[in-house]
Amino acid sequence: MQFHHRGYVSEDPRIKAAAGHGINRSAEIPDEMDVLIVGTGPAAVTVAAQLSHFPSINVRILERREGRLTQGQADGIQARSVETFQAFGFANAIVDEAYRNVEMCFWKPDDQHPENIVRVSRVPDDAHGVSEFPHIYVNQSRVLDYFLSCAEKSPGRIVPDYGIEFVDLTIDDSHEYPVTARIKYIAGPRTGEVRTVRAKYLVGGDGARSNVRAALGHKLEGDASLHAWGVIDVLCNTDFPDFQVKCSIQSHSAGNILLIPREGGYLSRLYVDLGNLDENDAGEIRNTSLDEIIRRANAILHPYSLDVKSIAWWSVYEVAHRVTTGFDNVPAERIGQQHPRAFIMGDACHTHSAKAGQGMNVSIQDGWNLSWKLAAVLEGRAPKSLLDTYSSERRVIAQDLINFDKEWSTLMARPVDEWDDPQDLARWYEKTIEFPMGFMTQYPKNQIVAGLEHQHLAVGFPIGKRFKSTEVMRRADNRWRQLGHLHEADGRWRVYVFADGAAPATTGTPTADFAQWWLNDAESPRTKYSPLNGDTDVVFDTKVIYQQDYTEVEPGHVPAAFKPIKTPFGLIDVNQIFASGHGRDIFRDREIDKAGAIVIVRPDQYVSGVFPLSAREELKAFFAQHMLPMK
Amino acid sequence: MQFHHRGYVSEDPRIKAAAGHGINRSAEIPDEMDVLIVGTGPAAVTVAAQLSHFPSINVRILERREGRLTQGQADGIQARSVETFQAFGFANAIVDEAYRNVEMCFWKPDDQHPENIVRVSRVPDDAHGVSEFPHIYVNQSRVLDYFLSCAEKSPGRIVPDYGIEFVDLTIDDSHEYPVTARIKYIAGPRTGEVRTVRAKYLVGGDGARSNVRAALGHKLEGDASLHAWGVIDVLCNTDFPDFQVKCSIQSHSAGNILLIPREGGYLSRLYVDLGNLDENDAGEIRNTSLDEIIRRANAILHPYSLDVKSIAWWSVYEVAHRVTTGFDNVPAERIGQQHPRAFIMGDACHTHSAKAGQGMNVSIQDGWNLSWKLAAVLEGRAPKSLLDTYSSERRVIAQDLINFDKEWSTLMARPVDEWDDPQDLARWYEKTIEFPMGFMTQYPKNQIVAGLEHQHLAVGFPIGKRFKSTEVMRRADNRWRQLGHLHEADGRWRVYVFADGAAPATTGTPTADFAQWWLNDAESPRTKYSPLNGDTDVVFDTKVIYQQDYTEVEPGHVPAAFKPIKTPFGLIDVNQIFASGHGRDIFRDREIDKAGAIVIVRPDQYVSGVFPLSAREELKAFFAQHMLPMK
Repeated sequence: MQFHHRGYVSEDPRIKAAAGHGINRSAEIPDEMDVLIVGTGPAAVTVAAQLSHFPSINVRILERREGRLTQGQADGIQARSVETFQAFGFANAIVDEAYRNVEMCFWKPDDQHPENIVRVSRVPDDAHGVSEFPHIYVNQSRVLDYFLSCAEKSPGRIVPDYGIEFVDLTIDDSHEYPVTARIKYIAGPRTGEVRTVRAKYLVGGDGARSNVRAALGHKLEGDASLHAWGVIDVLCNTDFPDFQVKCSIQSHSAGNILLIPREGGYLSRLYVDLGNLDENDAGEIRNTSLDEIIRRANAILHPYSLDVKSIAWWSVYEVAHRVTTGFDNVPAERIGQQHPRAFIMGDACHTHSAKAGQGMNVSIQDGWNLSWKLAAVLEGRAPKSLLDTYSSERRVIAQDLINFDKEWSTLMARPVDEWDDPQDLARWYEKTIEFPMGFMTQYPKNQIVAGLEHQHLAVGFPIGKRFKSTEVMRRADNRWRQLGHLHEADGRWRVYVFADGAAPATTGTPTADFAQWWLNDAESPRTKYSPLNGDTDVVFDTKVIYQQDYTEVEPGHVPAAFKPIKTPFGLIDVNQIFASGHGRDIFRDREIDKAGAIVIVRPDQYVSGVFPLSAREELKAFFAQHMLPMK
Repeated sequence: MQFHHRGYVSEDPRIKAAAGHGINRSAEIPDEMDVLIVGTGPAAVTVAAQLSHFPSINVRILERREGRLTQGQADGIQARSVETFQAFGFANAIVDEAYRNVEMCFWKPDDQHPENIVRVSRVPDDAHGVSEFPHIYVNQSRVLDYFLSCAEKSPGRIVPDYGIEFVDLTIDDSHEYPVTARIKYIAGPRTGEVRTVRAKYLVGGDGARSNVRAALGHKLEGDASLHAWGVIDVLCNTDFPDFQVKCSIQSHSAGNILLIPREGGYLSRLYVDLGNLDENDAGEIRNTSLDEIIRRANAILHPYSLDVKSIAWWSVYEVAHRVTTGFDNVPAERIGQQHPRAFIMGDACHTHSAKAGQGMNVSIQDGWNLSWKLAAVLEGRAPKSLLDTYSSERRVIAQDLINFDKEWSTLMARPVDEWDDPQDLARWYEKTIEFPMGFMTQYPKNQIVAGLEHQHLAVGFPIGKRFKSTEVMRRADNRWRQLGHLHEADGRWRVYVFADGAAPATTGTPTADFAQWWLNDAESPRTKYSPLNGDTDVVFDTKVIYQQDYTEVEPGHVPAAFKPIKTPFGLIDVNQIFASGHGRDIFRDREIDKAGAIVIVRPDQYVSGVFPLSAREELKAFFAQHMLPMK
């Protein structure tokens, strides 16, 4: 957190000064706005939090419910989501109150007494150190609270408008506000009133039964078969020894349970498998009673049992593996010619089982992927074509998700006697862990992801995957910092300059030459795309990492390109200078060429490209694809 | 954080349900109350936060200012204070926004060119791993914010009454509310109004010029000589390379600076030494201008210089090393016979230099020491004599503080040519680090600190010092936890039962026998001092730590004494069962006898005593000194 540089901040530095549309934000929804968000699920609140960082953009967010979500829904939060929370400023806070998962136990029928379950294996959650962030469980309502709190504390002061539903929309590209939406007040004094409002963009995060999706003429496609679950959030006394440990429990003949321990030390969620069915059975299964779910759970857990004291929430639901036919309003044959004006995200795009704990996580990434692009286009920093990449990037992810989840839930539901080796499930879980942790996403080459030509200069930062943090020494305060954790959700591009081996004071080196060009050349992307009268790092957050020990790096010797100037005092920021060495070595750990390299990272933390220090034309060409010069 | 066990908690679990006096807390200060706190400095807000945990106690807290502190004052926060913040639930939050100190640099005149300063050494902040908590710098106002936020979120809902000053007091021990205080409204519509209110106890945390101290007839005694400082919180551009590193800077002839980097990445505080003076000089030195302080700072920093862009705060002040003649209203000759009714804490008790960054930290411990005792007495759990220990315990600490600070500030101010070896200062700093980190406090034997007879059973938990945490595996969720971090500021005593080597299921072992006695025997402290109708761990938080690996510990095998029962559902809490082993070993690290041991820890985290597992009469006798049986 950097602050005080625009004047002393006395109160909570997480609360930013209101600006633009955040000043005197109207209680009434205006007739025209830049972005209308429908829903307050994980994807929608991510969009709200991101856009609130840009107060020149007028944003409203509608929710059918009369107030915040209180319970139920998702609870599994993968490491990539916690990494995202870190960028939005609330990772530590939510981790403090969440359940932290470190181990999964697998239970199966005892060979000798198959009517009894026994623990057969334990699998550590992240045995290979894929991420420094934890895997946590906490109710979705708290995730929404934190994102919405972030939105409210940000300059745009965005807060939801509750008790309002989206009805339908029309799009007229010739209008300044092309999207016309009808909305309906369904709670409060104006109940029943229908209004027409206009927006430049409409974003639908309104769930599996999305009205926005319907209005766009899309539908979910995929398996016809449904899988049914009884879910209970339960407080109980039990002799089952792993009630606060994540467990896959397979009984001999009573069925299966996925046990998800929850925040607070007492509560757990049980997903009791009710089996496959077709759409005709769905109504009937929905009549399964709470008592029946508890009875089944006890049968599965035999010889252990649950003495239920309180049910915090319960539900019976069925789900199929399905993906939407489109992510925006552009027909397949018009992609690249027509500009998208309405988008859908999250459960509106992909439905699947709850078993791999993916839904909320993928939705958050949908929202972040879309929202930084919306901000760039609406602020005039990027051409409209940037928004084409939302659909192209996220469609593949949605399909990958369905494929993974289908395999995972099939394996989880497979009866014990169909396994060659009962430990196969545990082995599969461990082998594929990078996917459910959220780190398998790798965007292919497009206007914001460069080619692989220079990947060899920084092998440990795969192009298209999220920037994997590691520790470096920040020279300003001589302290180890996770380099990636300094990447906040502020819409800025990151330019990591891994220096050649020369001492910082040396002139005429590749690093020094790059710095000179980057800072001063009229054609360098920094110069071309940065506004004249703002912080010099407002578009590109440029950081340098030297190979020397920090004791050999003096800020005065470092080129000015790595010491941005901050308004209004003209303060020189020395916090962007880093040193490897001193027992750790990011060059070694991330396989960075000792001749140096430039790693470009998108605002949503995905690696855009790797370039040599000598790159000039390549960098110019790369950014010219998706940035607009500042007037 | 344990929650949901009294019903599902949907919102922030840090916000506790209001209870007792926290329900419909009156805006108007009542005529009679249990505790009247004067001031909102670090000691006072600690008392408020602690007492708000006990909503049966009616507490008001007065502050002369019209609102919260905004800037200036203390900024150094030692590891013991962060440990305390952890107990009050906000360590991670404040660390996230604070400067984290990891190194101190020492600068002195260049041997060849004494008009120039050069860096001569770097000293790591905690080279010996004294604490897992960091040493941070953040403005005092934020510390107060967090404690006050904690008070407001706790069941008592305590918030300050601003714009009111304490005038004077009288004490009549025969009255149910013995303290009569006059208070005066000095802001707002009632300005000028003087009221008389009564309290059972009055707590003065009203600073170095304390009116409460004066009303009690005490005064600060100590050195006649004053030391003067010019202090600036400055935003600047500079070529001095360590502007964001803690530095001691000694110039050849221009004086000395203590440089304290501050939160946010840009601000630093400079303590510019203005030298010793006597009281007659004090008025004159106070006329030192901001320009003069900046001029001196530049002279000291030569050949470097400061280009000052903004001054966030500045002050000139003088201070002597002094300790109060008393900490409560009981005259020295009446100690043990008269019950204390009014107390002073913090700067009201001890004044010293700012150089070792001690003031706020010692004050917080003053406040915590007093407040848990006040709660125990007012709730009828402890005899009034418990409050005698506040003065006896904290008086010694205050004197130690003055002695340490006197030596430290003298060394810091010593001209360079008076040192045999210029590195001596750095060496002294490193040698004595446990003191400024806050961990040298060791209370002697008294009614709440047992004798050293059994210290050999747990050498790593010195009796009278704060319980030094280490990691153990919590069996409920199979996760490493810092044992000491589970000790929240809830007024409960901790009973750590380090088990003998037998497996948990074994009966007739010293551990099993103790558990049986502790839980069920009518004369055991747990039975005798715990109320019948509450959680079974409401007075004693009893935890067991087995020597076995966690995979050999099943909750069902653990004695019931280590599985408390929670109201209202009768839930069995399995979160108090721990295992050593699995690569770490608390028995080895803290030198605990393999035959087992019991470690008793006070509500303020200081070790009260070490006992063998066979102790019965000793435990009964120990707690009988300072607890009252529940009716």
